[in-house]
Amino acid sequence: MKIRLGIFGYGNLGRGVQYAASLCEDMEVVAVFTRRDPQTVKTVLPVRVEPADALASYVGKIDVLILCGGSATDLPVQSVQAIRLFDTVDSFDTHAKIPAYFAALDATGKEAGHLGMMSVGWDPGLFSLARAYFTALPGTGDAYTFWGKGVSQGHSDAIRRVAGVKDARQYTVPVESALERVRRGENPQLSTREKHTRECYVVAEEGADLARIEREIKQMPDYFADYDTTVHFISEQELQEKHGGIPHGGFVLRAGNSAAGHKYLMEFSLKLESNPEFTSGVLVSCARAVYRLRGEGKTGAVTVFDVAPKYLSPLGEELLRKTML
Amino acid sequence: MKIRLGIFGYGNLGRGVQYAASLCEDMEVVAVFTRRDPQTVKTVLPVRVEPADALASYVGKIDVLILCGGSATDLPVQSVQAIRLFDTVDSFDTHAKIPAYFAALDATGKEAGHLGMMSVGWDPGLFSLARAYFTALPGTGDAYTFWGKGVSQGHSDAIRRVAGVKDARQYTVPVESALERVRRGENPQLSTREKHTRECYVVAEEGADLARIEREIKQMPDYFADYDTTVHFISEQELQEKHGGIPHGGFVLRAGNSAAGHKYLMEFSLKLESNPEFTSGVLVSCARAVYRLRGEGKTGAVTVFDVAPKYLSPLGEELLRKTML
Repeated sequence: MKIRLGIFGYGNLGRGVQYAASLCEDMEVVAVFTRRDPQTVKTVLPVRVEPADALASYVGKIDVLILCGGSATDLPVQSVQAIRLFDTVDSFDTHAKIPAYFAALDATGKEAGHLGMMSVGWDPGLFSLARAYFTALPGTGDAYTFWGKGVSQGHSDAIRRVAGVKDARQYTVPVESALERVRRGENPQLSTREKHTRECYVVAEEGADLARIEREIKQMPDYFADYDTTVHFISEQELQEKHGGIPHGGFVLRAGNSAAGHKYLMEFSLKLESNPEFTSGVLVSCARAVYRLRGEGKTGAVTVFDVAPKYLSPLGEELLRKTML
Repeated sequence: MKIRLGIFGYGNLGRGVQYAASLCEDMEVVAVFTRRDPQTVKTVLPVRVEPADALASYVGKIDVLILCGGSATDLPVQSVQAIRLFDTVDSFDTHAKIPAYFAALDATGKEAGHLGMMSVGWDPGLFSLARAYFTALPGTGDAYTFWGKGVSQGHSDAIRRVAGVKDARQYTVPVESALERVRRGENPQLSTREKHTRECYVVAEEGADLARIEREIKQMPDYFADYDTTVHFISEQELQEKHGGIPHGGFVLRAGNSAAGHKYLMEFSLKLESNPEFTSGVLVSCARAVYRLRGEGKTGAVTVFDVAPKYLSPLGEELLRKTML
């Protein structure tokens, strides 16, 4: 019997979940739920598309509902509604709001008798795991996270809001020399500016004041002001041809010292041609974990920290020990 | 209240455990147990040294006993004896015998009401975690493990058994071009010879037949015959000066493809100046997990696959979510 998935929200992430589930022998996608007119939704693989208000009618037909909405406004509302009906997985990534989000999901889940695994993906997600395992080891030395090179959707959107900008793509780029300092075990204090640079590829509207656009981007608080930012004006065609993808990745490192003074370096890195498709793969593996943990009677909210690795793997415990240990 | 540790066996690993525990605010080492004459054991930090047969008298005084013996003959016997008295952690690493070892430890632990976490360290251990998490994600692509550059104790010992050899150090070296093929996403079929080379630094006895020694090393079945091996004859002084350490490390990689054909690469690597001291750090973190899981009533045998990451971390659950997620 396969794990029956529902997908709530059908943007890049929802499509990625459908793709990822298609690679899992133990999964099937029962339906996609959308707030748009279902008739207008083209899915990448054949599947039933339902309006969001049909969710309740799928109780008993879906084992795990994967929430593919955005962290800013969708997930805080949808997660606590959805967990009243289903076990859920989501990729909530607004770091500052994680404690409140956890508390709400945990309370509602326990009340409803459902389990929700939250903040799943690569960061938060796999990178969180690396930070937790790395810092669980004794020894001095902090865990460092670098992102990129990759497209930041939020920063690209911010550039598009500048007057005179038609389209834009922003890359976050780790500073190689800072990475090397961490690898050498210096445990440096690094400012925001020292860790990452920002590269912007901007398509301007005809006749726009390029100097003003560049200045406005570089001075934008929170997004760019604290970084060394470069702005390249390019044609719409070049943007489509050379910057059409959504790659991302990054590094988690910890350089420590044993009590006898010997150095060690732990490093985890990701290089992803498609950020949302990789995130979706993690969501699907976590749906497997939710299904199994719920089968053991677990309810409330969990994160990757609460879930033993065996629950994510398609291999059984014996095979895991035999082939992966 | 601190977690009270016992250390059974006081070689490189036992010393490393004592060092590692000294860096943990929540740990204290109560005693070291040895099969040698306790008077002859010099510890790296002050601690009580007891004969192995005093173990039973420490029931109630030790929370977790860390077994620091060898996998070949010590651990298969000691683990099932120790778990009758204590919760345990060990670094059993004879891959082929893991299923039988697990079964014995699990049965004895459940009978005695104790918990044993087995096969802990970096491989098996952190590398096993990387393999399990990486292959839990959907998508084609195998997990690859490369070791080194680092000293293999077993292979160094094997060289020392060759007639005319006074001392030796063997380095396992990953083949960079093979690593690159995996990173490029080729998912290559790699033979033993294609993955690693072996570099041997040998101190010969005076007048020994160097050509014969080199031939005997290179033709040694299991250890060297399947590898491209280089043999360097050096002086005893050079061996001490340049090859006195026990560094190691390696790589776990998985290059996969999403169903839409996008590539991703996951890579975890370790670079360790002291192999046993790093392994010891993992043992100590796992002792923390054992202590906590036992507090929840868990008994029998577990591996890293069965233990949620939060149990290893010195941070509480809330702080983990707030700072590491």
